[in-house]
Amino acid sequence: MAGFWTNHAETLRQAVEAIRSRGHFSAYPEAPSGRIYGETAKAEAEAAFQDLLGKPFGKGERMVGDERSPWGPALGITYPALPVSTLVARAEAAAPAWAGAEPRTRAGILLEILHRLNRASFLMANAVMHTTGQGFAMAFQAGGPHAQDRGLEAVAYAMEELARIPAEARWTKPAGKDSLAMAKRYRVVPRGIGLVIGCSTFPTWNGYPGLFASLATGNAVIVKPHPAAILPLALTVRTAREVLAEAGFLPDIVQLAPDTAEAPIAAELATNRMVGIVDFTGGPAFGGWLRKHVGAEKALHTEEAGINPVVLHSTADLAGAMRNLAFSLSLYSGQMCTAPQNIFVPAGGIPTGDGHKSFAEIGRAMAEAIDALLADPARAAGVAGAIQNPATLERIAQARGLGRVVRDSAPIPGQDGARTATPLLIEVDHTAREAWGEERFGPIAFLIRVPDAEAGLRLAADSARARGAITALVHSTDDGFLARAEAEFARAGAALSENLTGGVFVNQSAAFSDYHVSGANPAGTSCLTDAAYVANRFHIAMARRPVAA
Amino acid sequence: MAGFWTNHAETLRQAVEAIRSRGHFSAYPEAPSGRIYGETAKAEAEAAFQDLLGKPFGKGERMVGDERSPWGPALGITYPALPVSTLVARAEAAAPAWAGAEPRTRAGILLEILHRLNRASFLMANAVMHTTGQGFAMAFQAGGPHAQDRGLEAVAYAMEELARIPAEARWTKPAGKDSLAMAKRYRVVPRGIGLVIGCSTFPTWNGYPGLFASLATGNAVIVKPHPAAILPLALTVRTAREVLAEAGFLPDIVQLAPDTAEAPIAAELATNRMVGIVDFTGGPAFGGWLRKHVGAEKALHTEEAGINPVVLHSTADLAGAMRNLAFSLSLYSGQMCTAPQNIFVPAGGIPTGDGHKSFAEIGRAMAEAIDALLADPARAAGVAGAIQNPATLERIAQARGLGRVVRDSAPIPGQDGARTATPLLIEVDHTAREAWGEERFGPIAFLIRVPDAEAGLRLAADSARARGAITALVHSTDDGFLARAEAEFARAGAALSENLTGGVFVNQSAAFSDYHVSGANPAGTSCLTDAAYVANRFHIAMARRPVAA
Repeated sequence: MAGFWTNHAETLRQAVEAIRSRGHFSAYPEAPSGRIYGETAKAEAEAAFQDLLGKPFGKGERMVGDERSPWGPALGITYPALPVSTLVARAEAAAPAWAGAEPRTRAGILLEILHRLNRASFLMANAVMHTTGQGFAMAFQAGGPHAQDRGLEAVAYAMEELARIPAEARWTKPAGKDSLAMAKRYRVVPRGIGLVIGCSTFPTWNGYPGLFASLATGNAVIVKPHPAAILPLALTVRTAREVLAEAGFLPDIVQLAPDTAEAPIAAELATNRMVGIVDFTGGPAFGGWLRKHVGAEKALHTEEAGINPVVLHSTADLAGAMRNLAFSLSLYSGQMCTAPQNIFVPAGGIPTGDGHKSFAEIGRAMAEAIDALLADPARAAGVAGAIQNPATLERIAQARGLGRVVRDSAPIPGQDGARTATPLLIEVDHTAREAWGEERFGPIAFLIRVPDAEAGLRLAADSARARGAITALVHSTDDGFLARAEAEFARAGAALSENLTGGVFVNQSAAFSDYHVSGANPAGTSCLTDAAYVANRFHIAMARRPVAA
Repeated sequence: MAGFWTNHAETLRQAVEAIRSRGHFSAYPEAPSGRIYGETAKAEAEAAFQDLLGKPFGKGERMVGDERSPWGPALGITYPALPVSTLVARAEAAAPAWAGAEPRTRAGILLEILHRLNRASFLMANAVMHTTGQGFAMAFQAGGPHAQDRGLEAVAYAMEELARIPAEARWTKPAGKDSLAMAKRYRVVPRGIGLVIGCSTFPTWNGYPGLFASLATGNAVIVKPHPAAILPLALTVRTAREVLAEAGFLPDIVQLAPDTAEAPIAAELATNRMVGIVDFTGGPAFGGWLRKHVGAEKALHTEEAGINPVVLHSTADLAGAMRNLAFSLSLYSGQMCTAPQNIFVPAGGIPTGDGHKSFAEIGRAMAEAIDALLADPARAAGVAGAIQNPATLERIAQARGLGRVVRDSAPIPGQDGARTATPLLIEVDHTAREAWGEERFGPIAFLIRVPDAEAGLRLAADSARARGAITALVHSTDDGFLARAEAEFARAGAALSENLTGGVFVNQSAAFSDYHVSGANPAGTSCLTDAAYVANRFHIAMARRPVAA
């Protein structure tokens, strides 16, 4: 255990420095490169993944699991499913030793878990790719190193908070000629079992912040994966339990709680009285249920849904803007909580570096940029990946009727076994709120005709406030407009990107530097990660006794 | 404004240092002394208080107010009462400038408000005394300097949190031979109007943490006082508005929202969609309503009720222990949220420095200690004060039937105009949970016969978990028992005091050093004050744009 801390203390120190300065930092290399991860790592991971298929992942009386790769095959993996009462009892039995451990003991173990997850990033890439439908490179990055960075970020925030509470203090109060003196001791008391409810699109990237924040603050955690994406979190939990056991703790500090779509257990877990913290990523239907039924005595952190806007006012580089936006719309087929949906464009067009461009010209430029990006089917498959949920295909079909199709969605050629769909771009008037005014998850975007950019900005910010938004993108060459956009989206709680024309995309959120989700609109109750995200995962207990002054 | 910051920066620096080290600190002298506050301050405050009586406090179309001093006379003061919609609209109009101000500008103003409140502590003492019923010295200390310290503590925590968020960052990510560079800006966005719902017993001490925490993090605040204790918060709001106006801000950043018992407005305010933060001190009936109806999109901090236990295991100094406990039971007639109610005593008695004492002897010693403390009527009135609410007298009458009366409650001689009552001490068996198992607010305590001290500890901790407790007191000469008590009450979320025999009392909670309320049991959802208490009062907004690498 001391070894874990010693090995990783410098990484944690750098992470703590990064969350303060918020410059670029990453502890885990994002390049799926043999030079970094070992020349045989990719092939070995592929073999290891194949070896998992069609088999039970662990033993148990009741086994569940019906994952199917959006790229084609059923995974055929089953997982032991325990009753909620058993999960809770095991967590309670394992919890006291974890709660009583020194923060740096816990941090060392958690960083060792992240380190081992990092070494297994190629295997994780396979698991994420074949549950979420992400292309391989994205599954590697978002499912591996980027998710690990988010876990580390949560540990860093937790350690910062815990470091603010001294273990003891001497309190000496002048009282006339004498003084009163008390010895005080403070201890951190975990809030209760942490429940992490995973999602089907980014099971690790969205799951790690809550998992590692709850663990770092001394709570045992039950991980309830989405039935469609169990494997990435099963691998995570397995690694965590291995490291915990090596360090002399009961592995039940982290447990996997798989369920099925037919017999979900998240509600029962979330309302169990021993559960003190609920971290949820998913749709607003169950998110709303949790907001209503998880009592104020528990800490609830949700990331739900939003409608991310783009406002075009003017640009020096239309081609760059369109290339950039085309990538944002195409990446993982719009199945990112940060992907844009609504593109507000002035009816009279906008000024660009190549002269004034009409509304129709903007639409054509956008369609052409998407076509160009996805022209090569192999590249298209890598960028757009596959469609996680069959319901998304139905949503695309319905969306075609909502306005004029500027660019149609289509399967990616040569991916016959997979469920794929390129972006659908629909032109509507801003009055067609029934079309663009709700989240249409997947590769569906609206080109929305607005009287002018100011009106577009107002509509974009209003919809963020009313229906949620995680990101916003604005293109403008006018500093005054950018300043108004910053003020509007700050109030609306959407993270604003401006004038993206190069290699940074609105849907990318960098750990340690970008704050992901604000908590200020219906897209989610909390920021992943800020101080508020960790500070309510524990209580402070104190004891005091008189001592000689 | 710069002057306010300059004048008070050192005080804030000391406060920030104090919340880290948690030693003794106080910015505002607690002694009601003419040498500190001016030799004429007391008399002038008395005259100023008399001048407030029987008059409107401000002007308005609709005036409310029916405060009656527990010491006798009706105050006859009325206050302007605005509709909720008007209050909210005014707060919204005043809020943007406050939200946009620099944190240190806000802090300077808030510390100036606290400074002026401190200078007016004698007037506040009169206001608190004649609404809550506290004796003068206590009203001065708890209503004045100690409350001001708690306000400062909240500002210190808020400034610490805000300081963790940089205004901007340069993010430069290596990308092959080139790099990607982004300029990022972060801004703090207030969560929404802060609502402070005051209580009738400690309107300022319990109200200031939420008031100053919300203000320091940039929120406008509406203060809804208890109808029985409006004046202390009206004086507070008046001072705040004066300083805000002097600093060039709209005074509506802080508004008073008085109501009546017949037409309460707290529920309407708490559920108004522009209200983002609710701080409540009061009973669990309305506390429970708030926990159910204030949505997860708002931050809710409550302090409700608890049953504070005492466990006697052994003591080297029975007389000291009894003197100390007698004071804790008598102080403000048990109307403190931190006052003990349940005293668990082994049926076989306990070892003491003067030999073994039987259960009956302990009961007699406790009754005698109370009698001795309150023997002098003038001192009794000063310590015990008056009874805030007539319902408390009825509760005492009912409690007499719950067991054997060891010491009866009685009015304090010579206080004929006042509503007074000394402590009632009732002996019951631990099986009589219907007697001791619920909060009986006021000067009512139970001497509970338990098989042994270990059983007493278990019952005490269990009741804290089940029904809430803010404090706990243990007497033991056995380090092992004390260690077990610390572990039990840490888990149960009650702040433990051990072996108090001198001038520190279990009901005293010192700002900057003691954490008041844990949030870990039904006594309240939050600690006043820790990082979690302030960190969820704002959001972080970000904007980023590409820059040359």
